[in-house]
Amino acid sequence: MYSFKNDYSEGAHPRILNSLLETNFEQIDGYGEDSYTLKAVEILKQRIGRNDIDIHLLAGGTQTNLIAISAFLRPHEAVIAANTGHILVHETGAIEATGHKIISIEVSDGKLNDSHIKTVLDSHTDEHMVKPKLVYISNPTEIGSIYHKDELEQISRFCKENDLFLFMDGARLGSALCSDENNLKLSDLGTLVDAFYIGGTKNGALLGEALVICVDPLKEDFRFHMKQKGALLAKGRLLGIQFLELFKDDLYFDLAKHANQMAGLLRDAIDKAGFRFLIDSPSNQLFPILPNRLITELQKDYSFYVWSKADDDNSAVRLVTSWATKEEAVLAFIEDMKKVLKI
Amino acid sequence: MYSFKNDYSEGAHPRILNSLLETNFEQIDGYGEDSYTLKAVEILKQRIGRNDIDIHLLAGGTQTNLIAISAFLRPHEAVIAANTGHILVHETGAIEATGHKIISIEVSDGKLNDSHIKTVLDSHTDEHMVKPKLVYISNPTEIGSIYHKDELEQISRFCKENDLFLFMDGARLGSALCSDENNLKLSDLGTLVDAFYIGGTKNGALLGEALVICVDPLKEDFRFHMKQKGALLAKGRLLGIQFLELFKDDLYFDLAKHANQMAGLLRDAIDKAGFRFLIDSPSNQLFPILPNRLITELQKDYSFYVWSKADDDNSAVRLVTSWATKEEAVLAFIEDMKKVLKI
Amino acid sequence: MYSFKNDYSEGAHPRILNSLLETNFEQIDGYGEDSYTLKAVEILKQRIGRNDIDIHLLAGGTQTNLIAISAFLRPHEAVIAANTGHILVHETGAIEATGHKIISIEVSDGKLNDSHIKTVLDSHTDEHMVKPKLVYISNPTEIGSIYHKDELEQISRFCKENDLFLFMDGARLGSALCSDENNLKLSDLGTLVDAFYIGGTKNGALLGEALVICVDPLKEDFRFHMKQKGALLAKGRLLGIQFLELFKDDLYFDLAKHANQMAGLLRDAIDKAGFRFLIDSPSNQLFPILPNRLITELQKDYSFYVWSKADDDNSAVRLVTSWATKEEAVLAFIEDMKKVLKI
Amino acid sequence: MYSFKNDYSEGAHPRILNSLLETNFEQIDGYGEDSYTLKAVEILKQRIGRNDIDIHLLAGGTQTNLIAISAFLRPHEAVIAANTGHILVHETGAIEATGHKIISIEVSDGKLNDSHIKTVLDSHTDEHMVKPKLVYISNPTEIGSIYHKDELEQISRFCKENDLFLFMDGARLGSALCSDENNLKLSDLGTLVDAFYIGGTKNGALLGEALVICVDPLKEDFRFHMKQKGALLAKGRLLGIQFLELFKDDLYFDLAKHANQMAGLLRDAIDKAGFRFLIDSPSNQLFPILPNRLITELQKDYSFYVWSKADDDNSAVRLVTSWATKEEAVLAFIEDMKKVLKI
Repeated sequence: MYSFKNDYSEGAHPRILNSLLETNFEQIDGYGEDSYTLKAVEILKQRIGRNDIDIHLLAGGTQTNLIAISAFLRPHEAVIAANTGHILVHETGAIEATGHKIISIEVSDGKLNDSHIKTVLDSHTDEHMVKPKLVYISNPTEIGSIYHKDELEQISRFCKENDLFLFMDGARLGSALCSDENNLKLSDLGTLVDAFYIGGTKNGALLGEALVICVDPLKEDFRFHMKQKGALLAKGRLLGIQFLELFKDDLYFDLAKHANQMAGLLRDAIDKAGFRFLIDSPSNQLFPILPNRLITELQKDYSFYVWSKADDDNSAVRLVTSWATKEEAVLAFIEDMKKVLKI
Repeated sequence: MYSFKNDYSEGAHPRILNSLLETNFEQIDGYGEDSYTLKAVEILKQRIGRNDIDIHLLAGGTQTNLIAISAFLRPHEAVIAANTGHILVHETGAIEATGHKIISIEVSDGKLNDSHIKTVLDSHTDEHMVKPKLVYISNPTEIGSIYHKDELEQISRFCKENDLFLFMDGARLGSALCSDENNLKLSDLGTLVDAFYIGGTKNGALLGEALVICVDPLKEDFRFHMKQKGALLAKGRLLGIQFLELFKDDLYFDLAKHANQMAGLLRDAIDKAGFRFLIDSPSNQLFPILPNRLITELQKDYSFYVWSKADDDNSAVRLVTSWATKEEAVLAFIEDMKKVLKI
Repeated sequence: MYSFKNDYSEGAHPRILNSLLETNFEQIDGYGEDSYTLKAVEILKQRIGRNDIDIHLLAGGTQTNLIAISAFLRPHEAVIAANTGHILVHETGAIEATGHKIISIEVSDGKLNDSHIKTVLDSHTDEHMVKPKLVYISNPTEIGSIYHKDELEQISRFCKENDLFLFMDGARLGSALCSDENNLKLSDLGTLVDAFYIGGTKNGALLGEALVICVDPLKEDFRFHMKQKGALLAKGRLLGIQFLELFKDDLYFDLAKHANQMAGLLRDAIDKAGFRFLIDSPSNQLFPILPNRLITELQKDYSFYVWSKADDDNSAVRLVTSWATKEEAVLAFIEDMKKVLKI
Repeated sequence: MYSFKNDYSEGAHPRILNSLLETNFEQIDGYGEDSYTLKAVEILKQRIGRNDIDIHLLAGGTQTNLIAISAFLRPHEAVIAANTGHILVHETGAIEATGHKIISIEVSDGKLNDSHIKTVLDSHTDEHMVKPKLVYISNPTEIGSIYHKDELEQISRFCKENDLFLFMDGARLGSALCSDENNLKLSDLGTLVDAFYIGGTKNGALLGEALVICVDPLKEDFRFHMKQKGALLAKGRLLGIQFLELFKDDLYFDLAKHANQMAGLLRDAIDKAGFRFLIDSPSNQLFPILPNRLITELQKDYSFYVWSKADDDNSAVRLVTSWATKEEAVLAFIEDMKKVLKI
């Protein structure tokens, strides 16, 4: 049984584990003030191309989202998010638990644009309603689509003009930036969004997300918020060493490229077999619509999620590849699919 | 420069890192539903001697305290804690941030007793005040003292009689249970407190605390609270593998014993040199009162915290030993001390 | 200029002010423990026909909603509400500010039914999502529609079967219960919902809502929650005296009937003039769709809200009547409408 | 039985009730945007002598404290208060429920000074602790003492130098400002504190506190916070009319003077009878230490709180006078005291 269920089924890239081993008995400072964390932050700043940004290493996506958003907003301010947004449905009300409303916008492709946001602003006019203040987007989105540079520029401009913060959830940012369709650079993010994070957990780390805060008003006292929410790890080295290993050369991007290539093999074969996709995803999550009997056959040897019903005979499934996905497993999946289809 | 600053200066016990390496490419479920976590929980239940308890693995002490306490209480209910309690001073208001007041009690040795708690109950009489509902203790306390069995039994009885929950912070529980003075067993905790945690971070793990919930009313839906506060790690295996390694044999206790033995060497030597201690601590934190000039000399080769001023010429310092403390470093420290003192 | 903008434009019914005057210099207990409040509660219990309910007097609707809901739920539990629900859009995120998500359901007539709720339950399956626990409805709804007995029985049954609390916002409950279409009695509410409130502010009181808690698990310590949220008035007599006056005879219902009769006059005249309504409302809020030029003319002498655009030439407006609406003002409005329409 | 238990035993000053009656049928805007509220705010600004301040009318003291403090602080910021502070003990954890820690300082006379505050700042040094940001004082304090101008200037200066907000709870501000010992003017508060409130509930109003925000950073969006916490009354006129009546001439101060004069009569008589006071209070709350047998006798005809035990034979009691206290009741109390004492 091989799993295409998600991108966190395996542990960490071996180089990361080796680095943990090699540095294990060094006595170093705790709580993110160790030399490895400082160096990782330094390198990330170079990669992003700005020195005037703050970077904090956190343990997971929900944790990062909830700490960042609650630190950035005042009590009456709200978040705008697409109805597919992770914070809206898959984080057990983590944002609301910090006191903030999420205003949901119905979208078909997971992506927000300026007119979506404008609609929200137009309907929130006085103190009997929350004050929309932060726009939450993710790249790739929950359903695999990615933002192109002009799209992000448009949102960014709109947010600046309307005094809104723009926050990008980058749990799978590597896959977005390494997608064939992508025309955004990591350094673009440093100017187009107010804060974003670079996901490690889903791209080769044991755990870890690097939160980047690009504008001054959001930086102040951020470590207080981390500590208050239980996110300051005593052995902060665990995060620092991982991000250092991922970014001291191009490992992070190489791993994301691999995940995308594996997805590409699957996408091409499924496409060639004549199936459509629920949504056009250029990243490491695919949502092909397959015949139920094919799904049943494939499930004998592969695990993956059935996403939604298409009609009585067909369903959309979710196939996820990762840095650890083996090419032979992908090829075997394709062969098995063909075998069932007799093509 | 050798550090006696804390018990999280090094990485993890090598067996833990090895286990992470060996299991690295297994594809397993996320969010704490993997086989390693399940097995670790199983073994912990055996160790505690009860099957009807719930165990959850979390990343750190502040995280564990804030999730447990906010899950256990209704909005108007408050925590009773000693004025030295970690939640009161060193967690950036994490408990208050979840909406709950901490009622502080002035104590000299870090420990609560039933008459302390009674005083609080007697002065909280109606709905214009919070309702005291949970007693927070830590073992060892913030200042190294430990609870003896009769002391814990007394508090436990009082809490049951007064419908209070009793919660024990066990960030350094290993050191308490392995102390020479200790007469509590891990299995006693399963009946004497309503919930407690077994600290991993400060006893050989990279990160991790095992929260044990002993009574039914506190168990319900606990994983919702974990997820909502950002504490459900995608790669939950990271916690499961560590606790499995620590408890599949006696590694956890062996590591704590080592820390205590190293503290013992220091305690005996300091005592023999004629110095007193701020508080009598039988665990891995010592608070000797030393001449300032001795402190200055020792700081050239050893790092540790100066805790408080005793008088113009003397200060209390904090020396912490751990699973990783090297005996030769301890002996060197003792020799250096003698050298300065010319004894 | 006469106002049909809302039902809180005037002060209080004169009997209420007289009662405040007559009792003014009596020295009585504060914080809702005075004899007037106790008597008002007693009478309300008789009206509802149950002695085993708890009743608390609060100052306003948002205050009542936020205290009740946050007292009833645990941190991870969520509210289900229609997309038109007052708590969802017009209370500045008051519920979210207490930490709870509101799950919104798109409805056309402001009313929820069991299949709406079932859809939510079916899509909330594990701890990565909030746990739906309380169903919020209002009667009348934000847009004037009311629940019939069989509809409420259906929801009530579904909630009981699925372990959900059912809470009814009754800011305008008088108007619902006195509507010609209504077949619910005040006493039905005591068995069909778990908690509800009887709105005073919009039916003749200066301020005040009577929250009725019908089931034991929701009653405990409720006054703590009131105090904690700043809702325990020192001079609780102000609320007690008003509810006593409203309910010691049929004043409350007489006032609501008057409001409905005034709405009836408007409804009939508008209907006869050939205009449709955005929604069929049998209560004291009407949403007729009128030609823009008629609206412009009427606005010269009457104030009311333009609710939404219907098409280029017509808009829906909101006309609200109240206990204080003068029949001559209503008749004048109708005459002025006819004059503009030349009918 | 005559009550000296508190200053909210009666309703409102008759002029207030008359004004409510006279304006009752005017149709006016809701939510504090009516002409009476606007005029009351205008007059209050003149009284304080500044036009660049914001004033909001709220329903009660706990409500005002919790909304102001939670609006003024970011999540990790804390309040400094005297251990006798109302927010610390008598508001059911209202401040903590909004997520903020209160750092308590032990004082003997209810008053803070700059060295108290400095101690707190010195011990809060990094992100493992909350960040002290707001100093809460009340004038008079919970135990009747008042701040003199030089004391307040000293605190004010210290707060400005240390980037702390200074907030004054003025639930009984009238009594402080009209005390014989007082040398502060209402206009001084506009420059010495960042925000304060003028208590109406305890000085002749049915309910109501006027929150004054003196500095720009605290003003923004304040009405959002009021609405979110359920404090924006639909019939805001109720508050506006009362404050207009209290401040359109000197009624507010006349009422406070009366309360103080009645306290003065009691103070002199008790003093002359040879009894001491727990604390020297120049305002409308007295804490004389009386023989228990005298207390028992007086309790037959007068109600008041026994505050604390002094020794086996004597106790401190609390006697409160108000705008409504009758001189004949005070004189009768004094006569009855003398009768028991046979003097």
